[in-house]
Amino acid sequence: MTGRDSGADIGPIDDAPVVVLVRPQLADNIGAAARAMANGGLFHLRLVAPREGWPQERAWRNASGADRILEAATVHATVPDAVADLHRVFATGGRPRHIVKPVLTVRAAAAELRDICARGLRAGILFGPERAGLENDDVAQADSLVRYPMNPAFLSLNLAQAVMVMAYEWWIAADETPPRRLMTNETRVATKGELENFLAHLVAELDACGFLHNLPKRPGMVRNIRHFFERGEVTEQELRTLHGVVTELALGRRQRGRDE
Amino acid sequence: MTGRDSGADIGPIDDAPVVVLVRPQLADNIGAAARAMANGGLFHLRLVAPREGWPQERAWRNASGADRILEAATVHATVPDAVADLHRVFATGGRPRHIVKPVLTVRAAAAELRDICARGLRAGILFGPERAGLENDDVAQADSLVRYPMNPAFLSLNLAQAVMVMAYEWWIAADETPPRRLMTNETRVATKGELENFLAHLVAELDACGFLHNLPKRPGMVRNIRHFFERGEVTEQELRTLHGVVTELALGRRQRGRDE
Repeated sequence: MTGRDSGADIGPIDDAPVVVLVRPQLADNIGAAARAMANGGLFHLRLVAPREGWPQERAWRNASGADRILEAATVHATVPDAVADLHRVFATGGRPRHIVKPVLTVRAAAAELRDICARGLRAGILFGPERAGLENDDVAQADSLVRYPMNPAFLSLNLAQAVMVMAYEWWIAADETPPRRLMTNETRVATKGELENFLAHLVAELDACGFLHNLPKRPGMVRNIRHFFERGEVTEQELRTLHGVVTELALGRRQRGRDE
Repeated sequence: MTGRDSGADIGPIDDAPVVVLVRPQLADNIGAAARAMANGGLFHLRLVAPREGWPQERAWRNASGADRILEAATVHATVPDAVADLHRVFATGGRPRHIVKPVLTVRAAAAELRDICARGLRAGILFGPERAGLENDDVAQADSLVRYPMNPAFLSLNLAQAVMVMAYEWWIAADETPPRRLMTNETRVATKGELENFLAHLVAELDACGFLHNLPKRPGMVRNIRHFFERGEVTEQELRTLHGVVTELALGRRQRGRDE
């Protein structure tokens, strides 16, 4: 439990924002939140008056190896104590009344958090207790509110899930993965020349077997076949397989003596 | 458990994509996944060969009221059976070798899923078992892979968390919440005239008490004060409070006989 320095390597610890769990009720959720933090590269955890005390074995059981986050977590008596060294504080959760504050979507908050950290300032994100959420006095410690724009008919967000979405947006805000690309592994995308070569092979066999015997329709039929093969990025490996398929189908036809 | 038609109202059920949990190991995770689905407006759940059998009380306990999703869930023996009526299938998880497929980020997949649904087609998203993830034969049923671009040093994503991020992106892809706005509740943002009126009040009192007695520095000091008050969107209510603060501070000073 505590004291052990095991757990997974979770990557380099940086000056990412601090996650502050305010009066969390269940140690399981603290562990699950730590796991979500590790997934999204948020490494600093502070606990304000955890109801079950701290540390708790069940947190480690739910952290799935994110032990370093739990071991480095600090416990604080109050929210002001937990945020005293931070420059900016964001509060997640509902929309309290009688409050005048900027409200950001999770995505906009993540972008702002990246900007804050790039300026060398430290930020924190408050998450309230499982049932009740943050109280007005907690929210008053924050300079901005973070809103999760999700299904208004079912807003009951699990604590670790709320942390997950924030951690996810934090990571994504600096991620440059292309939105879409073809994974080709050992092979590569075929050139247009290689595709043309295959189409010539296919059309020759289709001519030979009489599939394209209707001459007025032939150009349109060839074009339809071409459209299908041009649509995706066919790979060089797939073209070789398709060459084999056409050759073998044609050969079988010839061997069965039905060659036209 | 099953048969009861209780649970929360989770909003209108539509033709959103189907979540297919392939050989899920723990019923708790099925329940937590259903809750996450409800959060993000994904209402259709299919289970392929759940290890603990189905239904399971623990799923309902973890669903936090998303009972309708669990009650409508269907159980299938194989992935091909679970996806037979779908037009497009996405597979989440790792990066299998020897496979040629488009790889999309979760965000790009969500955009594509919205587009697919807008065309009246039905889509499904495969999630693999907790430990092992999808097998190669499962992935072969999909036309695209979905990649979670998160901390490469700690990619161990809880099943319900993976569903959560997908559901979140699905919801966000059609959400029009402004990224940032000032929540003012009962009050409203002050006009520039109202702010000017307050600044005049403040400067007059500061002149009266001698705070601005250094005439060469006076314009710069007044400008600094103005910069602070102009920076955010001050509200009409806050200005009234600030008028009161200035008046009372000045009055106290006068009453203590230190009026200059």
